[in-house]
Amino acid sequence: MADSMNDTCPSSSRADRPACVAVDWGTSRFRAHLVGEDGRLLDGVASDEGMGRVAPDGFEAVLTRMCAPWLAAHPGIPVLMAGMVGSRNGWREVPYVPCPAGPDEIAAAMMSFEIAGGTTVRIVPGLVVDGPEADVMRGEETQILGCGLDDAVVVLPGTHSKWATVRDGRIESFRTFMTGEVFALFTRQSVLRLLREPPVDTPVERAAFRRGLAAASADGGLLNRAFHARSAVLRGRMAPQEVDSYLSGLLIGAEVGAAKRLAPADLPIVLVADGVVAEEYREAIAAAGGDVTLVDPQRSFVDGLIRIARLAGEVSLDRAR
Amino acid sequence: MADSMNDTCPSSSRADRPACVAVDWGTSRFRAHLVGEDGRLLDGVASDEGMGRVAPDGFEAVLTRMCAPWLAAHPGIPVLMAGMVGSRNGWREVPYVPCPAGPDEIAAAMMSFEIAGGTTVRIVPGLVVDGPEADVMRGEETQILGCGLDDAVVVLPGTHSKWATVRDGRIESFRTFMTGEVFALFTRQSVLRLLREPPVDTPVERAAFRRGLAAASADGGLLNRAFHARSAVLRGRMAPQEVDSYLSGLLIGAEVGAAKRLAPADLPIVLVADGVVAEEYREAIAAAGGDVTLVDPQRSFVDGLIRIARLAGEVSLDRAR
Repeated sequence: MADSMNDTCPSSSRADRPACVAVDWGTSRFRAHLVGEDGRLLDGVASDEGMGRVAPDGFEAVLTRMCAPWLAAHPGIPVLMAGMVGSRNGWREVPYVPCPAGPDEIAAAMMSFEIAGGTTVRIVPGLVVDGPEADVMRGEETQILGCGLDDAVVVLPGTHSKWATVRDGRIESFRTFMTGEVFALFTRQSVLRLLREPPVDTPVERAAFRRGLAAASADGGLLNRAFHARSAVLRGRMAPQEVDSYLSGLLIGAEVGAAKRLAPADLPIVLVADGVVAEEYREAIAAAGGDVTLVDPQRSFVDGLIRIARLAGEVSLDRAR
Repeated sequence: MADSMNDTCPSSSRADRPACVAVDWGTSRFRAHLVGEDGRLLDGVASDEGMGRVAPDGFEAVLTRMCAPWLAAHPGIPVLMAGMVGSRNGWREVPYVPCPAGPDEIAAAMMSFEIAGGTTVRIVPGLVVDGPEADVMRGEETQILGCGLDDAVVVLPGTHSKWATVRDGRIESFRTFMTGEVFALFTRQSVLRLLREPPVDTPVERAAFRRGLAAASADGGLLNRAFHARSAVLRGRMAPQEVDSYLSGLLIGAEVGAAKRLAPADLPIVLVADGVVAEEYREAIAAAGGDVTLVDPQRSFVDGLIRIARLAGEVSLDRAR
């Protein structure tokens, strides 16, 4: 971890004066950034001390250890968080805000509490869709607001992918798809793990991904088409190195096929993803007849936190993000 | 284990003279029966020493220990097997027979070998569908032949459910669905395990099962509808005790929906299942517009082994099963 910038240094410009600490604390990862007044990321730390690995009374110790230099150098700096840290099994349970929800309602429902050393911690609430189609999110609401869009379908791939509809700047509703988790279960826990080998070659992977995409809309459905990652390998019709990409195409194709049918056709699709995941979703959405605009996941998270905190009057920031 | 009947006893009738030992040796279970000349099950043993838990050189020891009294009392009795015991990681790899395949081809492809004590072991081959829809089975071919049907769709629920089309007494083709395995993954390994509790009350379970069945044909698809077993519990719209039944309905509904669309509409549906599984599949198939005839899984397995062995001239049995 690099030392953070020191805002008491006479040569520091306003641009690198720290305004807040932004923490993305999910089930499996802890990520924090020191954010400047202009919104720039001045420093960052990360670890695998996700909510799932922290005891109920252990959150404060992880935070103060991970961010010690920042908290020491900038006494009283606001610490802003979103993610599963605000869930029932997290640090503090922050009640869900019901959809439709805009930035004002979300900002008003932030939970604040003080920890040792006079630091105030603020956790963004998750969102809920109530009714027969009940659904929940924690963390993605921050990324969605960070996109700063008035009207869009926002797609957030992940362990539990979200497809959210934003209208007039408010998150109207959303759906969760267990795509990332089922991929992990298939490749690590199921019978399909037995014949797979790690992917090696990009062109081969791309072809296998496309084969999976096509399988997602073929007859038989997911429960049948997933088994092809075993039977086709047994019969020499799929290489062991193609299994992961085929399953990725099959699962992303199933998600996109179902989600795209539900999404309002009049809204642009914004994809909050990077790297291979961004390319795979872009291709799957294109195959379903859609174009996407890409947004960086980390940037949208920090921008969302800043936006919510500004509305709550918690931080002073120059940029209208 | 009960002692087996002794065919040297002067009072024994032909009906209880043992004709063979029938072994169903799958991935997770070993089950053996001593079968009389009239096809009756004279004795039975079972253990969890499935293929997956037996070392490559350990199969003979498991068999001779489990069936020791029968082998000692009836020297030279044929031992007939089917299931994953004939797979690459089983005792001996018996090459797959390609579909369409009838009883004659399957009987001709049995693998025989002798073990210590002069016992001959015979393993039934699995079946394969080749081509782009490659699929494999081991064990179910024996149950299908045991149904003794000329024309039917035979449904075999399980870890990897099979839907097979039988025409003119031959197994024309089949499809595998990972229904049972995905249910186990969801309820034991996934995030959905966190909010579930063991089912307690039959009427509640039945209602939750039906809710899952309905969800299988609703929008959103499997990856979305499975997550309801978390979000609906979080929002008080599903009891923790309903999670298993809901997921069972969702997965069986997804299997039946896809499989029924593929199955020839002119053939009767035969369901090889018992207990709760039989009731659940019967209901799911009825919801998809089909009637079923039930066949007992254990009986069909033994009948299938006897039928195959008789065609191969391996056992003398009176009943034309």
